[in-house]
Parts: sequence; structure tokens; C-alpha cells
Amino acid sequence: MLILMNLNSPRQDIQNVKDKIISFNCTPHEIPGASKLAIGITGPSEHLIKEEFQLLSSVEEVIRVTKKYKLVSRQMKNDDTIINVNETIIGGNELTIIAGPCAIESREQIFDIAGKLKEMGVNFLRAGAYKPRSSPYAFQGLKEKGLEYLCDVKREIGINIVTEVLDQSTISAVAEVADIIQLGARNMQNYALLEQVGKTQKPVLLKRGMSATIEELLLSAEYIVSQQNYNVILCERGIRTFETATRNTLDLNAVPVIKKNSHLPIFVDPSHGIGIWDKVPAMAMAAIAAGADGLIIEVHTNPEKALSDGLQTLNLTTFRELIQKLQELAPVVNKKLNLSKHE
Amino acid sequence: MLILMNLNSPRQDIQNVKDKIISFNCTPHEIPGASKLAIGITGPSEHLIKEEFQLLSSVEEVIRVTKKYKLVSRQMKNDDTIINVNETIIGGNELTIIAGPCAIESREQIFDIAGKLKEMGVNFLRAGAYKPRSSPYAFQGLKEKGLEYLCDVKREIGINIVTEVLDQSTISAVAEVADIIQLGARNMQNYALLEQVGKTQKPVLLKRGMSATIEELLLSAEYIVSQQNYNVILCERGIRTFETATRNTLDLNAVPVIKKNSHLPIFVDPSHGIGIWDKVPAMAMAAIAAGADGLIIEVHTNPEKALSDGLQTLNLTTFRELIQKLQELAPVVNKKLNLSKHE
Amino acid sequence: MLILMNLNSPRQDIQNVKDKIISFNCTPHEIPGASKLAIGITGPSEHLIKEEFQLLSSVEEVIRVTKKYKLVSRQMKNDDTIINVNETIIGGNELTIIAGPCAIESREQIFDIAGKLKEMGVNFLRAGAYKPRSSPYAFQGLKEKGLEYLCDVKREIGINIVTEVLDQSTISAVAEVADIIQLGARNMQNYALLEQVGKTQKPVLLKRGMSATIEELLLSAEYIVSQQNYNVILCERGIRTFETATRNTLDLNAVPVIKKNSHLPIFVDPSHGIGIWDKVPAMAMAAIAAGADGLIIEVHTNPEKALSDGLQTLNLTTFRELIQKLQELAPVVNKKLNLSKHE
Amino acid sequence: MLILMNLNSPRQDIQNVKDKIISFNCTPHEIPGASKLAIGITGPSEHLIKEEFQLLSSVEEVIRVTKKYKLVSRQMKNDDTIINVNETIIGGNELTIIAGPCAIESREQIFDIAGKLKEMGVNFLRAGAYKPRSSPYAFQGLKEKGLEYLCDVKREIGINIVTEVLDQSTISAVAEVADIIQLGARNMQNYALLEQVGKTQKPVLLKRGMSATIEELLLSAEYIVSQQNYNVILCERGIRTFETATRNTLDLNAVPVIKKNSHLPIFVDPSHGIGIWDKVPAMAMAAIAAGADGLIIEVHTNPEKALSDGLQTLNLTTFRELIQKLQELAPVVNKKLNLSKHE
Repeated sequence: MLILMNLNSPRQDIQNVKDKIISFNCTPHEIPGASKLAIGITGPSEHLIKEEFQLLSSVEEVIRVTKKYKLVSRQMKNDDTIINVNETIIGGNELTIIAGPCAIESREQIFDIAGKLKEMGVNFLRAGAYKPRSSPYAFQGLKEKGLEYLCDVKREIGINIVTEVLDQSTISAVAEVADIIQLGARNMQNYALLEQVGKTQKPVLLKRGMSATIEELLLSAEYIVSQQNYNVILCERGIRTFETATRNTLDLNAVPVIKKNSHLPIFVDPSHGIGIWDKVPAMAMAAIAAGADGLIIEVHTNPEKALSDGLQTLNLTTFRELIQKLQELAPVVNKKLNLSKHE
Repeated sequence: MLILMNLNSPRQDIQNVKDKIISFNCTPHEIPGASKLAIGITGPSEHLIKEEFQLLSSVEEVIRVTKKYKLVSRQMKNDDTIINVNETIIGGNELTIIAGPCAIESREQIFDIAGKLKEMGVNFLRAGAYKPRSSPYAFQGLKEKGLEYLCDVKREIGINIVTEVLDQSTISAVAEVADIIQLGARNMQNYALLEQVGKTQKPVLLKRGMSATIEELLLSAEYIVSQQNYNVILCERGIRTFETATRNTLDLNAVPVIKKNSHLPIFVDPSHGIGIWDKVPAMAMAAIAAGADGLIIEVHTNPEKALSDGLQTLNLTTFRELIQKLQELAPVVNKKLNLSKHE
Repeated sequence: MLILMNLNSPRQDIQNVKDKIISFNCTPHEIPGASKLAIGITGPSEHLIKEEFQLLSSVEEVIRVTKKYKLVSRQMKNDDTIINVNETIIGGNELTIIAGPCAIESREQIFDIAGKLKEMGVNFLRAGAYKPRSSPYAFQGLKEKGLEYLCDVKREIGINIVTEVLDQSTISAVAEVADIIQLGARNMQNYALLEQVGKTQKPVLLKRGMSATIEELLLSAEYIVSQQNYNVILCERGIRTFETATRNTLDLNAVPVIKKNSHLPIFVDPSHGIGIWDKVPAMAMAAIAAGADGLIIEVHTNPEKALSDGLQTLNLTTFRELIQKLQELAPVVNKKLNLSKHE
Repeated sequence: MLILMNLNSPRQDIQNVKDKIISFNCTPHEIPGASKLAIGITGPSEHLIKEEFQLLSSVEEVIRVTKKYKLVSRQMKNDDTIINVNETIIGGNELTIIAGPCAIESREQIFDIAGKLKEMGVNFLRAGAYKPRSSPYAFQGLKEKGLEYLCDVKREIGINIVTEVLDQSTISAVAEVADIIQLGARNMQNYALLEQVGKTQKPVLLKRGMSATIEELLLSAEYIVSQQNYNVILCERGIRTFETATRNTLDLNAVPVIKKNSHLPIFVDPSHGIGIWDKVPAMAMAAIAAGADGLIIEVHTNPEKALSDGLQTLNLTTFRELIQKLQELAPVVNKKLNLSKHE
């Protein structure tokens, strides 16, 4: 259920509504919008009595939320969620590019690529310190050492860091370095991790599981948002199908479906999505044309030598060409490519 | 195997190569390109002796085609296939729009929508006279009556006709009316039908089966092309996955994969692909951004009253808005929207 | 809708019911059962008035059939359909084995394997004269020559023939030889072919399409049965999924689902289903334990030399061992393995 | 790589082999078999020199393991793994039944069902204290209270406990109660959890992820076994496909594939697998016929009132009938249903 109030409601009226919610053993969530203040309700809502709220002062409307997910739904909040990461805006009319290698391989490698991306105006570096791998014998990342390098890169080059957390025991270490914490596809339904990451109050990039439905992705986002962390970016990264010509089947259908049903920004990862580097630019363009708010792309100065995911990774030349095409595409979808000014 | 010859090879040299191929019980296919003349070879190619061809005069190179499909592969013909349908060009830099209702429902309905589309500059009308339906009890189309209406529409309104054939017994009737014969997803592996339709020498729009791999789609195209009918348009229309939020999962990954591997034009059907009308424009834009050569879209003057597929059908207003967005998008991908001049 | 009448209803009462159905522009289908006579109704049933039938004499009950499929549903006919093929019974408590090579390769090959199977008591030989192949360049079967050999085998060895039809133009030739006409997975939604095969009145083995839902399989069966041909055997043969360790994913879940919803016998093809010969016996056993009425299994005297599907084909030794295990399993599921007495 | 030694090798010879392995920075794993002692090797095996091992005394053979998974492969250990849980044997010729409700709902409920199952001879009770749920608002289990009830049930009724762990922070609490720790489908690739659970040295039931390949399941098991915990039971529980008639698609093909490639026992969960209670017995029978070592089945004294998964849960009557059928089936597959003697 959702209580819509006048944006200028007196503080006491708002408090009255929240107290009433609490009296039903439910939790109120204050969600300010452009034209209304919404108070979302989670908890055992079957006992709530609609009429009791309609009588309270400053309450304009009481709405039943019909989706299984509540706080992340457009019913609850009609305006797009805008996320401010160190003064860079994600969502709305901004198109954001997150780029970088699959894994941190060495101090030199990560400084080199971060510098090159920064020169191109890219504001977000992706790079994994902890890598989830199907096999226990595969390269699992530089771990703490990797985080240390990221910390140095961030300070010296001045670029925002997007990096994955795998495990509750390393959340605080990752959260210290990351500007956006990435939750990978394999962990989309690791609910304990979702809740703990939600509690950090850091922005989160939540990737769709390999066979998760769109509804399940939104429900997993709800786990994070229900920790009062509203800064969640959803990410489509390809699903599993029978097709073997591509690594995964990037499901761009998810973009307009999510835009309709949720106020959260939706990014696309064309690198994992199609999994073949020379086809990544086409899918990146398609993602933006479908309405995505941003892209997360694997870029490496030397993809042939990458320790993981080399086949799906762009080199700098191809990435630069893609950025130019995206610049042309952005105004067609009424957006602006969010690159920092650079020399 | 593939023999590359000089474009200006004397006719006798070309004939010598073909005779040599026939002497091995194989079939030669002459495929002129921009810079070279290719002679494709199909049949029991394991006995061919490469050296015997290299010695023939005007032969520049002998190449082994490594894909299972041969004539439709880019190895065989590097230049994009361009199809001329009554002076309208499909493929290359042209973006083509095929639009219209799922089914012909009445004379008035089809004249009405065809007139409106023609006014907007659309050169191709889609409309089914024969409808394949899962249930024997569902509306199966107006059949012969439908073809008759299409014939009148074509003559009186002057629009090219794209319509489906279901059955060998109606091929000649359909071929008489259709400018492009559509082969539906359910018939993608109906090889007898593919061959018979191939023999009509009419352009063919071949839709990907619901669970066909991209390789299987290309092999099915090969059945048509091996009948010397090179005018085949491939069409991605959504595959079956576990996701239930959309009718099918439109697999735009197929677009760059096909562009890489085949010279045939690739269209996309976003209407069946995502199956929800208000999300069709986003997927249409994405398809073109991914590199598709055209779209086939369901449009009806009154989708709520359509006898079939109403939920995925655009009305004229939404379709007109989409056309405008596509006009803006086309130059970004170095293409031109192929609409006829109108009032 | 479905009219239940007393089994001993006077002929005139039955005729009255049928006439009433016809007066609504619908088609009556007389379906005798163990305890009741059912009259199924297909056609534009929305105009039927239930009360008008309830008043007719000998009518006991009028039931609305809620499934999209009608004649094949258990609602329409509660008793299992029993099919008599030249005095061999399929369905009910009988477990039937259809065995043989993927394709007829030569006169010697087919006589050899047919003789060996007959000695083991197998009553049904499978062997393809026409083979549907993804590639136009793969072996497509011996065609008419193959049918000729089957005809000889049938006459000289005395075994029932199960063979596939691909194409309307060869239906009558196939129907002349076949005791059961097979419709393959690729043709499950080739509705014109389904109807034409239905009209032959021969028993039909209808294979599930690679990505057909169970409901679609039953609707395709409905196309055949609506031609008054009630002798349809359904066949699960594996669906397409993301798993690559097996050729297809044999979906045994289909067996109890179909048993619940339809009165038609359901067979399983473990050879195509899992696609790896040494795992075929396990899946064959599982199919029978799940409640299947029979199996269709690829067996070859020399699988390594088979022209197609060798990897999924049993040799005679493994097949014989499987038959012995099935003999032990049959009574556990209250069935009897339907082998002919042999010397 | 794998070193095969004589079963009666002197201890010093074994130690020499292990020291040599360690000198290459790899880890030795001693795996005693029926006829040979195997020493598995994990770690950076690319530097190992085969010849150096062949020369050591008591070494009979040095084998390269070709699968990505090593310790769980049949190449590494040919004999079936047998797991002894408080003197009840799992694997080999024993068929094991794990039964019980989805979730612990109350002290009464769990004592009631556990008592009834014990009377029927069932040795393993399944019941969730922690429940992973797609929605944060769904019932998540009784948690610590649930574990407390399980502890009482175990002591008072004398039945082994199988219960799920969701989270690293509760591993030790769960491990104290559980005789077998269950790892659910959503956590199959939660590698940190796999390793921590591995370290408890408790037997583990590892469920296949909803879209995990069989190879990925075995690699996840490898994460556990590489912690020196060899007591891993694999469990097929249904995968995601396009089919909507069943909750999941129980993939029994996994059973013979796993039996061929791994020595670990493989169980089947027909309750989640097909998801419809009246079809669970058919799939349970099929699982055993396919070669599974055991079943995990949802049973509730009153399925209609279950707090979760009621639709797929058997009542006691249906469960008892299934046990009787399984008793008949077991000898057909050369196994014995592992029920305790009871009054």
C-alpha cells in the first residue's frame, strides 16, 4: 500500500501517517517525488485499513500496489530514480558508461587502462578484485591487493570505482573503495548478501541472474531497497537459452519492460551479454536505442592477453569508435552521454 | 568450396571452371560480386581436388568454405545481397519498413490500413490470408478471399504485398499476389515447402523458428538459395525462453551474428518478438541500432478489435511516431529510411 | 462442449443430438467409452445453448470442456485410447517397443536389422525413407527406394512399419507401406500436413516439437483427431534447453502431465531425447517408470557405421539387455511388455 | 593429474609422492579405492612433470584428468562414493529417502510429521528453518527457533536431519543440528558459502542451480571437495525452460550423465522438479529407474495448509503408496530401499 501526500505537508502530518503505519506493525518508507510525497508501506499489510489513512490530514490518496515488488515499482514512485555518485548523475537524461577490464591483473595494468579511460572522459572504472569462477582452479582475482590498487587509482587518477563483492566477509573492504558496489549474476539471489550490501548505503549495480525472470530481478532489488538504500542500478547481462552462437542471449526486452514497471535505472552489459567482442558495439547501440540508462563494457589495453574474458573485451580503438557512435545516438533518444570534460 | 575469378574473366574460362565442377558431380553457382566473380560449389565436395582448379585460367583463388551453410555465407559472397522489389531496394544502406495487420479481416479493413500506410510512404503491406494457428478452432484467415482482397489493394493502392504461405498446395496462388512470400516460424524447417517456394523465384522473407539456432536459420535459407533463388530476407522474430514477462524473447544478438556470417539482409519483427504493443517501438529502435536492414511491424487501425495479435499491434498514431524516431536514427547507423515520396 | 449419453441410447436419440449440434453450425464427434457415450462438439461453440441439449432424451449430462484442446482431452473421454495395429494393441496395459535404425541405408541393412528385431519379438520396425535434415547437403534418405525395401521387409519378415512422412506429395506412398505414420518434431506445427495425414485414417505417431509446449502438442494432435482419426500416439523426444551435455533434454515431466490431461497414448524416444547411446537405457527405463505406453528406440546392427544418428543408437547386445530390464520393470507399473511369441 | 598406487604401498612411498606434489606448489588428495590408492593433485598443475612421478616407488600409473572438475570425477576415483551418516549408508546399492515439509511451521507440526515418517522407516527428515524466498515479504522460516525444534525432534524421535544453510553467519548453528547440510539451488554458485560449508566436514546435499549446466554443478561440488570434504550428494531439482505446464523441468538426463562422469551419489527432488503433487510419484519412480541414489520429497500432514510449496507436497497417504511402489522398483535396478526396521 502507498499513501500519497501533498509535497508541502506539515512534518507533523507526515509523522502521523508514519505512526499509524507503525501501529499496524508495518514499516513506512518516505519517497519524495516531483509532485507528491509518497509513503510506501512494507510488512504484514493484509491488516491495514485503507479508510483509517484516508481520514488523516494532508493525505491525498491511498493506493494498493498490485505487483509483488513494492518500493522499486513505478506504482510506488512515478519519477525516475536519479543517483548522484560524487556529483556525476546516473539516470534521467544521462547516459552513463562504465568501462574497464574484467579483472585487475597488476598495478601497471589497472593504472594504464584507468588513465586511458579517464582521458576519454569516462567517469566510471569497472575492474574486479574478487572474481567468481565456475572452477575452483581458475584465477580468482588479486583480492585485497586488487582493492589496494583500485584505491590508488581512484585517488591518483580521479575516476569512480565499480567493483564486485562476492562475500559478506569482504563487504566493508569493498565498500571502502567502491563508489558503486557490483552484485554479480551468480549472487542475485544471495539474499543475505543483498541485505548486507543494502545496509552499506552505497550505490549498488545489481546484475540479473543467468536464468532470473525480470520479476525476480526486481524482487532482489527490493531486498536492497527495503534496507532504505534507494540507489540501485539494475543490469541486464544476458540470459541462458539454447543458442550457442553467442555466450549468452542479451535480453534487451528487459529494458522497456523494466522502464515500464520500475523507477530504477537500467544498465546493460553487452560484453557478457553477447560475449564476442566484435559484436559488442552493435549490442551496445541497441541497448541505448531500447532505452537503457547506461552501459558496462569490458575494455582492456590488450584483450588477447587478458587473464579472463578476453574474447568479449574491446580494445581502446574499438571502444573509442563506439563512444563516438553513442554520442550521435544519444540525442535521438533524448539523452546526453555523460562524459567528463577532458583535454 | 569456392572459386574466385577475375570479374572480367572470358566467358570460356568461366565455363571451363563450371564444367570441371560438374565433372565431379557437383553443382556450380555463379555469384557476381563487386570486385570478384565467385563460383560456389555444392554437392559431394569431398572428392574435389583443389589443385585441379588452381591450374585453370582466370582462377585467382580456391577457398574452402568452413561453415555448414555455403551459398548464404559471407565466405562465399562478401558483398551484401541487395534485393530489388519492383524498383524498391532492400538491403545495403536502405532501411525497409513492412507494416500492416496480422490478418486480413475484411475488404474495408485491408483497404483502410493499406491506404493509411501508403500515405505515410510505407512501400510494403503485410497481411495474412492464411494464418497458422496452434488451435484448429481459432480463426485461420480469409484464405482465397483474402488473397483476392490483397490483389485489389495492390492494384488500386500501389503497395507491395508481403503475405505468408503455409502449404504447398497454395504456393502458386500466393506467389501470384505476393511481392515477397513470407515463410513463418513454424515452417522454418518444412524443407519441402522451402524448396517449392525457392522455385518460384520470388523474394522470400524467412522467419526464424521459435527455437531454431542461428545456424539452422541459415541452413534453412540455404535450402531456398540452393534452388537458385538468391532473394532471401532473414527475419528474427523472438525465441522461446523461460521468461514470461514477454511473449517471446526477441534475440537481437542474431542481427550482428548474421551480419558477420551471411550476406543476406536481416529484418526484425518486434511485434511478435516482445509481444506487447507499448514496448514494440523500443525494440524496433534497438533492432535498427543493432544493424538490422528492416522491420516488419503489426499495425492496425483499431488494435483492440483485431481478430488476432491485438495485444502486440500498434495503432496508426504510435506507428507514425515510431517512423519519425526511425528517421532520426537511420543516419546514425549510416542508413536511409526507405519511404516513398508522398503528398 | 460435450454431451454424455447412456451407452444404450436408441440410435434415434443419438441422431437427434447430432442434428441439434449441426443446427448450430458445429460438428458432432461420437466417442464411445466404457460407461457412457460422449458426443464431442467442435466449431463455433459460443452460440450453443446448454439447456437445449439437456432437454433431449437419453442425454445425461452436458459438460463444458475447459481446455483449448477438446477431442483429445480426458474431459471429453475418460478411458485411455487403445489402438489396434494389425491385432497388436497399443495403450492400456500394453508396453510397446518400436525399434530400428534412423534411416534405411540399403536392402541388406534393413532386412538384417528387421530380422534380428523380429526374432527378439519386436512388433514394430522404425526406419526412415525420407529424412528431414538441417542441411540441404546431408543424406536425405533413400526415398522411394527406401519405401520399396520397407514394403518387402513387411511382407517377408512380418513386422509392422513405422516411418516418417515429410511432405504432402508423398503421403499416399508412405501410407501404403506404413502401419503407423510418423510425424516428426519439425513438422509438429505443419498444420496442412497434420490434416492430410489425419485424413488417411492410419495410426499416427506425433512427435513433440523441439520447443513446443505440452499444450501445443495436444493442439496439434487435435488437428489430426478433428479429421475423425482417433488413432494418435503422442511422443516426447526431448526439448531444447541451455544444457549442452546432452543432445536434447528429454522431458519426462510431459508423461504424467499428458496422462492426466489426455486419453491418448504417450510414447518416449530416449534416443533423440538424450542423444548419447550409453545413457539411452537409463532414460528408457525412466520413461516407463514415469508411465509411458511405449518407446521408440534407435537400434542398428553396427552403430559406428550408421549414416545418421550413430552416436545415439544402440547395438543389438545393449538393446537386448534393455529389453530384459524392461521385462522386469513392466509389472511394477502394472503393464506387460508387448512382444510377440518367438522361437 | 592423478597418481595411482598399489593399495598396500608402504606409508613412506605414499609420503614421497605427496612431498613431490607439494614441491610443485600443488596439493595432494589421498583417495582410497577398492583396488588402488589414488593421489589426486590440484593446484597449478601445468608445471608437473609426469616422468618424475612414474619413477617413484609403488607408483603404478600417472593419469591426466581431462575434465575441468578433478576430485569429483570418475577418472580420479572409479568406485562410487559411499557416505555413512550415523550408520545409515548413502550411495552404492542403497536407495535413500529424505522426506518432510518445505518449512518448519511450529513445534507441533514438525514433531507430528517426523513421528509419522519415522514410523514408516524413513531415516532422514527434511525441513527448512531458513527459507530463501524471491520476495523479501514472504515467510522466511522460523530461523533459530526452527533449528531448536529440529534439535528436539532429532533427540526425541531419532531421525537424521537435512536442513538448508543460506548464509555464512549461520553455518555453525545449522551444522550443529544438521546431519546433512543442504545447499539450495540459488546458492549453487555462492562459492564463499560452498567453501565454508565444505570446511564443516559435514555431509552436504548440493542442489543444481535453476540454469546450471551439469558441468557447473560438478565444479561447484569440486569447491566443497577441495576442502577435503568428500561427503557430497548431488541433487537434480529441475531446470528452467520455456514449458509452463510444470513448475520446473525435472532433468532426469542429469542422472546417467552424472553417474558416468562422477563418483558422487546423485539424488533427485521430484517435488520442486515438476512442482505438482499428483505428478510427483511418477517422477520419483522415473528418477530411481534412471539410476538415482535417492529422493528428497516434500511431505506434509496437511499440504493444503502448508505455509509454502503446498501445491507440490504429498500427504502421508500418497507418500506411503509411493514408498510401496519404490519397494517394488528397487530390486529391478539392483538396489535396496534404505528404510529402518520399524514396529
